[in-house]
Amino acid sequence: MAEVVAEVVAVIPFRQLNPKSRLSLFLNRKEREELAFFMLIDVLKTVFNSGVRDVVILLQSDEKIEEMQRKLKPAKLQVDTRDLNTAINDVLNDLINSSPVAVIVSDLPLLNEKILRKFLQEEGDVVIAPGRRGGTNMLLVRKPFRTSYHYGSFVKHVSTARFMNLKLKIFDSFFAGCDVDTPDDLLEVLLHAPDSNTGKFLKKLGFRVVLEKNPRLVRVLTG
Amino acid sequence: MAEVVAEVVAVIPFRQLNPKSRLSLFLNRKEREELAFFMLIDVLKTVFNSGVRDVVILLQSDEKIEEMQRKLKPAKLQVDTRDLNTAINDVLNDLINSSPVAVIVSDLPLLNEKILRKFLQEEGDVVIAPGRRGGTNMLLVRKPFRTSYHYGSFVKHVSTARFMNLKLKIFDSFFAGCDVDTPDDLLEVLLHAPDSNTGKFLKKLGFRVVLEKNPRLVRVLTG
Repeated sequence: MAEVVAEVVAVIPFRQLNPKSRLSLFLNRKEREELAFFMLIDVLKTVFNSGVRDVVILLQSDEKIEEMQRKLKPAKLQVDTRDLNTAINDVLNDLINSSPVAVIVSDLPLLNEKILRKFLQEEGDVVIAPGRRGGTNMLLVRKPFRTSYHYGSFVKHVSTARFMNLKLKIFDSFFAGCDVDTPDDLLEVLLHAPDSNTGKFLKKLGFRVVLEKNPRLVRVLTG
Repeated sequence: MAEVVAEVVAVIPFRQLNPKSRLSLFLNRKEREELAFFMLIDVLKTVFNSGVRDVVILLQSDEKIEEMQRKLKPAKLQVDTRDLNTAINDVLNDLINSSPVAVIVSDLPLLNEKILRKFLQEEGDVVIAPGRRGGTNMLLVRKPFRTSYHYGSFVKHVSTARFMNLKLKIFDSFFAGCDVDTPDDLLEVLLHAPDSNTGKFLKKLGFRVVLEKNPRLVRVLTG
């Protein structure tokens, strides 16, 4: 089955500027940009270790592109300032006739190599790992497809696959399902992936889990 | 592997009175009690269909016990008004020398038979399906064990298993990971299990999903 994984090209969309706005009450812009970058590093490490053929990071701006290229190699960086879906669908169209394509969101610090390999080996024309709040955290396509990453992408991707008569598989994973948008999601990182780059960064910022009736997140002042 | 499942006794703790207090802003007490009951019915159906040997519903009060017994048969009802952990550990102690025991929380309307059977067939002395916010949504034990269901049960169950030198397996499931405590969790029910008893009840109450940038929940006036 290793050959199946070695055919896949992974596409990771990444927003450098002012990401994770739903964490704005808890993290300033610089911290949110760093958090997003550490999450990308965690995902990238997992994706490379899984043994895929190539990784394309799809950037939404050319901000600090040389520095990004240096830090993220051997991933290929591609800048596309257009709407996210237009950008992803263009990459998908370019690749799909020669490789299966896995679109993986960049904020999955709980993802690990074992889960990702299982996902990439799943049968089907379209395989979807749902995220919370109706998202699509990982999408594997082996036939031409059109993505739709806003306004409840999970429901839309399921409909599109059915409409196009493609064999659809839902991939059931708690850890792949934890994308990071809210403070509750940060709690998941500290509970399940405290030693990831993301987890270490959150601890450095002073975030701690308090087990008090229900686990909750606090931020303490740090040095 | 069907024999493995047929040995298991499932224990489902259930709180009849004033459950799901974190939904109090959105649902009145009667609605929350009904919601909890519909979720129990969904879980119970899944558990019976999985083919386990017996199901014990562990009630925290004897309120309306005859009506409950009638509606929930063939499950065995057991009332224990003591602290939840004391009650669960007592049942566990009674059963563990003759059967593997699966403790399953009653608010998993996204759980299905296929996932549950896979869980019950998982190897290990202790198998844990994590829930959001540090919870333990399903716990399968094949050797004596002590549960600890408050204050971050996932972390505590993992520690206990390690301390007792038991073979531990983490069961990775998005759908088993969705227990229902918050309005965000209700959104998951309407997205992924709209035709469950729970989903139909929420729709009857007027809850709808609006796909507007990010999917969100609204409640419209009904009837």
